[in-house]
Amino acid sequence: MTTSQEFEDPGLFECMYNMRAMRRLKPDPVPEAMIEKILDAAVRAPSGQNTQRWAFLVVTADEGRKFFGERYRHWFRKLLGDRMPPDDDDSSPARQARAALHLADHMTEVPLLIMALGKRDWPFRVPPEERVGLAPPSYGSIFPAVQNLLLACRGLGLGASLTTVHQMFEGELREYFGIPDDYGIVATIPIGFPMGRFGPVRRDPVSSKTHRDRWGNQPPMTTVD
Amino acid sequence: MTTSQEFEDPGLFECMYNMRAMRRLKPDPVPEAMIEKILDAAVRAPSGQNTQRWAFLVVTADEGRKFFGERYRHWFRKLLGDRMPPDDDDSSPARQARAALHLADHMTEVPLLIMALGKRDWPFRVPPEERVGLAPPSYGSIFPAVQNLLLACRGLGLGASLTTVHQMFEGELREYFGIPDDYGIVATIPIGFPMGRFGPVRRDPVSSKTHRDRWGNQPPMTTVD
Repeated sequence: MTTSQEFEDPGLFECMYNMRAMRRLKPDPVPEAMIEKILDAAVRAPSGQNTQRWAFLVVTADEGRKFFGERYRHWFRKLLGDRMPPDDDDSSPARQARAALHLADHMTEVPLLIMALGKRDWPFRVPPEERVGLAPPSYGSIFPAVQNLLLACRGLGLGASLTTVHQMFEGELREYFGIPDDYGIVATIPIGFPMGRFGPVRRDPVSSKTHRDRWGNQPPMTTVD
Repeated sequence: MTTSQEFEDPGLFECMYNMRAMRRLKPDPVPEAMIEKILDAAVRAPSGQNTQRWAFLVVTADEGRKFFGERYRHWFRKLLGDRMPPDDDDSSPARQARAALHLADHMTEVPLLIMALGKRDWPFRVPPEERVGLAPPSYGSIFPAVQNLLLACRGLGLGASLTTVHQMFEGELREYFGIPDDYGIVATIPIGFPMGRFGPVRRDPVSSKTHRDRWGNQPPMTTVD
């Protein structure tokens, strides 16, 4: 039996169009079969020369989630400073900020954390002895896998979001989780069943982001989303 | 009418599992509705603080494709050097290398090139006057969109692959296409109808890439892909 047989296959575009960052999550544990399924989706992504230099640290143990969540909350609030929008601000960025703060304050209760890591060996053809210091991972070979993982969460009805606040305390994370120096933490994805409902993402229209044949040329587009 | 109504919605996991890099492409033009659809999928991706600092340069004009393709071929062959595997090598990397060379040699015939660009304003809160030189784009806010675009191509039956060889001649591209300094080219995606058939991607199993609660701990996985 392979994981790909255990779940219905949802619509690709349906998932993309409704993959909001879900930051209000229930503490209920995520079934192991779902954890395997979203990781199985992640590793199908492309990577430079198909080298698959990714690794995933899956954290469900109470102590690990507490260790990560407490530091995430501390650093998120420190970065936020006094920039929290007033409660009566109903703008999209304000609602987003409140949801992000909710996630930070409840991070220790999130049942599943997945850290996406990348090996620091880019460019691949530079021999280790010729490298100066630690290179960053090849982000272009990790984020496609992260996006697959996020889409798979959406497809299974799991709430998730892409976070990078771990950068503020990566050293502590490496020591606590025993992560070797030659892997960099690229993103941390908190995952759980959502409290709210999925909904369409808000984005600027394609036409406002597209240039045709030369920068500044408007595309001949007829449709607007 | 929105683009999301024009096409069938294929299976999410079906697309992920069979999204091989397709490097042998027909010269037949890609319908405008498909170009819009894949860009519409790209912009649904997440980005840091939903700032959507991406831009897409769509190239279908003969001159632009010729300009890009000739330089791509030159640099690809230069980078390849004498590392081309012998014709009787049927290993997966060897076949991949031959396909990549085929793409390079026929790049001028690829009907659609999409360059994914990112604004060089990361981290967002550093005021322009305090920036030293040009920062790279926030890759983590662009590659999820690139992956959506690649998945959308697969969903529509278009062949595509993620290339970064443009880095070798980015200066020439900027001048030719009029790209401003504050945008960096993150990836170039050559797109067309595939000569061959889509098929399952070959990847190392999830279990070989996953650590549970601490680096080195084997995950309690039961399934293998």
